[in-house]
Amino acid sequence: MNTFGHRFRFTTFGESHGKALGVIVDGVPAGIQIDLDFIQSEMDRRKPGGKYATKRKESDTIEILSGVFEGKTTGTSLAMILFNENQKSRDYDSVKDLFRPGHADFTYFHKYGLRDYRGGGRSSARETVGRVAAGAIAKLILKEIGIDVYSGISSIAGMKGESYDFEYATKSEIYALDKQKEELWKEAIDNARKTHNSIGGVVSLKATNIPIGLGEPIYYKLDAILADAMMSINAVKAIDIGDGIASVDSNGFENNDQIDHDGFKTNHSGGILGGISNGDDIALKVYFKPTPSIFLEQDTILTDGSETKCNLEGRHDPCVATRGSIVAESMMAIVLADMLLLNMSSRIENIKKVYN
Amino acid sequence: MNTFGHRFRFTTFGESHGKALGVIVDGVPAGIQIDLDFIQSEMDRRKPGGKYATKRKESDTIEILSGVFEGKTTGTSLAMILFNENQKSRDYDSVKDLFRPGHADFTYFHKYGLRDYRGGGRSSARETVGRVAAGAIAKLILKEIGIDVYSGISSIAGMKGESYDFEYATKSEIYALDKQKEELWKEAIDNARKTHNSIGGVVSLKATNIPIGLGEPIYYKLDAILADAMMSINAVKAIDIGDGIASVDSNGFENNDQIDHDGFKTNHSGGILGGISNGDDIALKVYFKPTPSIFLEQDTILTDGSETKCNLEGRHDPCVATRGSIVAESMMAIVLADMLLLNMSSRIENIKKVYN
Amino acid sequence: MNTFGHRFRFTTFGESHGKALGVIVDGVPAGIQIDLDFIQSEMDRRKPGGKYATKRKESDTIEILSGVFEGKTTGTSLAMILFNENQKSRDYDSVKDLFRPGHADFTYFHKYGLRDYRGGGRSSARETVGRVAAGAIAKLILKEIGIDVYSGISSIAGMKGESYDFEYATKSEIYALDKQKEELWKEAIDNARKTHNSIGGVVSLKATNIPIGLGEPIYYKLDAILADAMMSINAVKAIDIGDGIASVDSNGFENNDQIDHDGFKTNHSGGILGGISNGDDIALKVYFKPTPSIFLEQDTILTDGSETKCNLEGRHDPCVATRGSIVAESMMAIVLADMLLLNMSSRIENIKKVYN
Amino acid sequence: MNTFGHRFRFTTFGESHGKALGVIVDGVPAGIQIDLDFIQSEMDRRKPGGKYATKRKESDTIEILSGVFEGKTTGTSLAMILFNENQKSRDYDSVKDLFRPGHADFTYFHKYGLRDYRGGGRSSARETVGRVAAGAIAKLILKEIGIDVYSGISSIAGMKGESYDFEYATKSEIYALDKQKEELWKEAIDNARKTHNSIGGVVSLKATNIPIGLGEPIYYKLDAILADAMMSINAVKAIDIGDGIASVDSNGFENNDQIDHDGFKTNHSGGILGGISNGDDIALKVYFKPTPSIFLEQDTILTDGSETKCNLEGRHDPCVATRGSIVAESMMAIVLADMLLLNMSSRIENIKKVYN
Repeated sequence: MNTFGHRFRFTTFGESHGKALGVIVDGVPAGIQIDLDFIQSEMDRRKPGGKYATKRKESDTIEILSGVFEGKTTGTSLAMILFNENQKSRDYDSVKDLFRPGHADFTYFHKYGLRDYRGGGRSSARETVGRVAAGAIAKLILKEIGIDVYSGISSIAGMKGESYDFEYATKSEIYALDKQKEELWKEAIDNARKTHNSIGGVVSLKATNIPIGLGEPIYYKLDAILADAMMSINAVKAIDIGDGIASVDSNGFENNDQIDHDGFKTNHSGGILGGISNGDDIALKVYFKPTPSIFLEQDTILTDGSETKCNLEGRHDPCVATRGSIVAESMMAIVLADMLLLNMSSRIENIKKVYN
Repeated sequence: MNTFGHRFRFTTFGESHGKALGVIVDGVPAGIQIDLDFIQSEMDRRKPGGKYATKRKESDTIEILSGVFEGKTTGTSLAMILFNENQKSRDYDSVKDLFRPGHADFTYFHKYGLRDYRGGGRSSARETVGRVAAGAIAKLILKEIGIDVYSGISSIAGMKGESYDFEYATKSEIYALDKQKEELWKEAIDNARKTHNSIGGVVSLKATNIPIGLGEPIYYKLDAILADAMMSINAVKAIDIGDGIASVDSNGFENNDQIDHDGFKTNHSGGILGGISNGDDIALKVYFKPTPSIFLEQDTILTDGSETKCNLEGRHDPCVATRGSIVAESMMAIVLADMLLLNMSSRIENIKKVYN
Repeated sequence: MNTFGHRFRFTTFGESHGKALGVIVDGVPAGIQIDLDFIQSEMDRRKPGGKYATKRKESDTIEILSGVFEGKTTGTSLAMILFNENQKSRDYDSVKDLFRPGHADFTYFHKYGLRDYRGGGRSSARETVGRVAAGAIAKLILKEIGIDVYSGISSIAGMKGESYDFEYATKSEIYALDKQKEELWKEAIDNARKTHNSIGGVVSLKATNIPIGLGEPIYYKLDAILADAMMSINAVKAIDIGDGIASVDSNGFENNDQIDHDGFKTNHSGGILGGISNGDDIALKVYFKPTPSIFLEQDTILTDGSETKCNLEGRHDPCVATRGSIVAESMMAIVLADMLLLNMSSRIENIKKVYN
Repeated sequence: MNTFGHRFRFTTFGESHGKALGVIVDGVPAGIQIDLDFIQSEMDRRKPGGKYATKRKESDTIEILSGVFEGKTTGTSLAMILFNENQKSRDYDSVKDLFRPGHADFTYFHKYGLRDYRGGGRSSARETVGRVAAGAIAKLILKEIGIDVYSGISSIAGMKGESYDFEYATKSEIYALDKQKEELWKEAIDNARKTHNSIGGVVSLKATNIPIGLGEPIYYKLDAILADAMMSINAVKAIDIGDGIASVDSNGFENNDQIDHDGFKTNHSGGILGGISNGDDIALKVYFKPTPSIFLEQDTILTDGSETKCNLEGRHDPCVATRGSIVAESMMAIVLADMLLLNMSSRIENIKKVYN
């Protein structure tokens, strides 16, 4: 089950400390000009490094193996690969037989009977390089009809942003949406690092210029698949579409988006009604739990069931939400591209447009 | 896209005011004793009626059309049907050309170019009868290995429940998990009805006796598919796994579930690590927005784009979360049954167990 | 696994002697005028009865339950049902514990541990009613862009037809493609019936006005999915695309279809190159084995493994290929409709055509 | 659509003359000992070279990128890659704008609007390296429960083999099943080469020690998916299960496999009844058309529609059936592994076996 999407879909492979990671993207329409610099710039947005992220050193250079000919997509299987440079850098004896609290070590071991303990193996967030590469391809499709996708940090350590500036976030070292809060958020991250602890954060996502009609009811609704996509990202534990959480304490009259000749007067729905885009901006929030990798002593057990103490060392993001934002944005682009292709056959008129 | 699930999956059909609604369940193992009374009792849990729900009168009698022979499942396509009794009760001229705010009227019309305007047609929550019927079959599978699933209301109108009693909820008229809060919640619902408005609510879900290992990484994670399942339910706008939302303002040391020889010492994760069940109770919350059908005047437009006022009449749930709780519980059962079947082949030893 | 197709797909339910059989068709574009008489006329083409088919009496009246509003498809789940009239007509004590040679009795029993022995239960060819109903919907889509599909008998009892007249076949009692051979074929069928035996036959299929580009390489090739579709029909044991079988004894120079400015000069390929339609007529042959239900004494065993004699009574087609021809034609229409929808997103230009 | 299979499935990428080709295998149970030498030996069975095959020089060395840890499968995404050594060896100016008769050039160009003309690009049979690698993994699963798969040439140039020796075929330079016919077949191939032409051939497949119950009715039948799998192989145009083609001219009494206490007395069905394995050997035949690449002048057109002559040069298999036999065998192994995993949940007893 390493595949995501229906008509536009991708399949990933690779582990944190294996030879390579990569992705096969399927369903890419032919004739799209591939801009490798753009794809690499997307990769760089999630690359480890910087003051507020893990110190793992990787250049994360992506290479296209197939599906592109003379600079254009051919409509066939588009494969991208990234070789791990840092694969043999550590001694794993200390974590080999131990379940790190908050990690997938315990569940992978019991599900499969064995596990690749090097850096979390397949369960590592390093797997998301493939998603960002696939997301870059999705964005190239979306651009052709004018759809833009955005993301950034809207809350850290209980300090919620008050205004969102999605352009600013692209320049911020921590992808902050609120310039006013940025310093406080940086301090909180820095503080988490210094205390060998970690913190969570909220990523807000936006997509604009959305055609009405994206989303396939009843069981491939736009919001449901966005929820699936986001929840599949490491450390994500909650999803909120539009004003979803707040709406629970509101009432129908206030929460309904009334309509006039200019369109919807408000956007509490996050741009989705009945699982289908209504033409307004898509808006959602994604909740990242605090990074489970911390450098404080914790109780745990070994694979043989005996109790022990977990004392990790190494390099980790004190707040995964920051680098998680580009991953979430990529997944949103992928879902939208998939929905765009699926919706093409919603009406018999569209079919005639293509074939006549 | 009217199918949900992978190995255990179902397909629904039918509209709010069509002849019949129903479901085909696929992947049901052979040899399960079918208890029709149990299935009907599940249907009755979501049936309209009662003081706190819509007054629409439907007996919602479910009938099995195939897949069961001499009381046992045969392993083949299990179809269930339910005829609408109430299908011609109204005159729809007033809503025929109008988009009700908060509903899927607008999006269905623009996606498909036409819509069945009778009671929302396919986008009506009446579609969920099929999910409850399929959920009942899923529960019969889960019972065979001891898994139980539960649900109930944990918050209404900003009043959060403090303790959860899942047994009590099954007897409560509004499926309340907190007996202390029940009267306040009922008042809030009653008040919403009297003011022709509506309110939202939160449903909490629990599943117990879960084997370790359910969930298929990376793109069929247990939490991701639960999120997909829940978000596909009408009026659901947010999902929270374990202490997901709260964890964002916590830190890694507090949020990690440490482990000793008895297992996990806390359950902040909601029983899921790396997308795989860890053996603890599965816990999640589902946020239902206020019912969009209200009886207050709202601004809207007609299908030709001209402005008008929307003044609805009829019968609707002032708080869909209450009846939504059995739907969410059914979807959880379906996801767990699916994951149970998928996980069978996770290890080569299991394959030998079955074939040797 | 009761679902076939990807973008246009259907799910069937029902057993030979259950209450009802039916089909849910998914992915039907909105706005198609539904002609119920046409659907029923398709059903009538596979209906039991007549001199050369089984005497089972069924009116096979199809009813639409959902997905159509005011005569047009709504883009949602299209359900059709057919109630069995003949469901309690027999005493099954004689076959209850016995495996009929050539039937699925043995395999269903051992796979599932139990079986519905009434008329073969789910394994009965009566399941194909749902395929013909779904095929009729597929044909309504194909008609919108001018594609036509045809079928008929091209060989029976070793007597191959020499010329194919697909129009004639629609009028022939045995769907004969060759008027000259028709009487000989009828005699052979009649003779099989009189001797309590059965015979096989070959169905030839044709589709015309096919756009270039249908078929999704590498693993959803048009010919591969046609082969899957045909082989899923009861009693089919071989598939031949274009001049496939004959080509094995030919050579590359003779078998290649050379091209000039008018197109392909021959059609040995059956209209498919590299799994994709080349614009020429699609041509294939489907081989039906002799009906396994015969009325001659055969050796078999009981469910407990003890040996016995099988002496069947009742009503069966002496040659299933004849009524199988409309089933094969329906499956071809379904595959083509599916490929038509899938191919819409093959080029970025098509996407712009739909969204701009 | 570059993915094949349901529970055990694989996704391929790569073109004939791109940087690399490869495959991701999904659904591989954890704990299987991976024998890289065995995988490589399978690759070598389809490798170009030898007197009767193309002279293209490739070492076809396969490398595992992920999914294996300390020699065992981890249950996660298993990726294998193979770098093309021969990717820049030619000048393609002569075929760049020309449609080679019998090839997919014409259909790819018209479907996608452009094509990778180097060696057929994605449509090249070189894609099958990924299938053989995935097939090797499938075989490792099958071996765990004793299933064996075999293949070989049973007919070339109208000369049918009379007896099948599947062991012998593994040693034969042309994978011949019939030692008596081998020399005649070699002569026919050699003659085709010398006359710049090509010939077709038939591959026969066998699988032994099959558990009863593999195959998922109605739309994932064992024979239907085998047909899909085989027809997806380049140059395959017909499939024959058991005595399928011959049965058409037989009768029910002769063709039915009668049963006694030792099992089926004959195996006309090819080991499959109602789409489910009956425990007998699986037997099928796969028809390969003559290689379309020939070195005789043919009529064709250019991409601009103007007429021209096609005069190919280079290196090609005069009879693709020979090297096709390992590809077909690999696909059979893949289908059987998939069916094996799917069938695990056919009965509730099996589920209890795994979880209790």
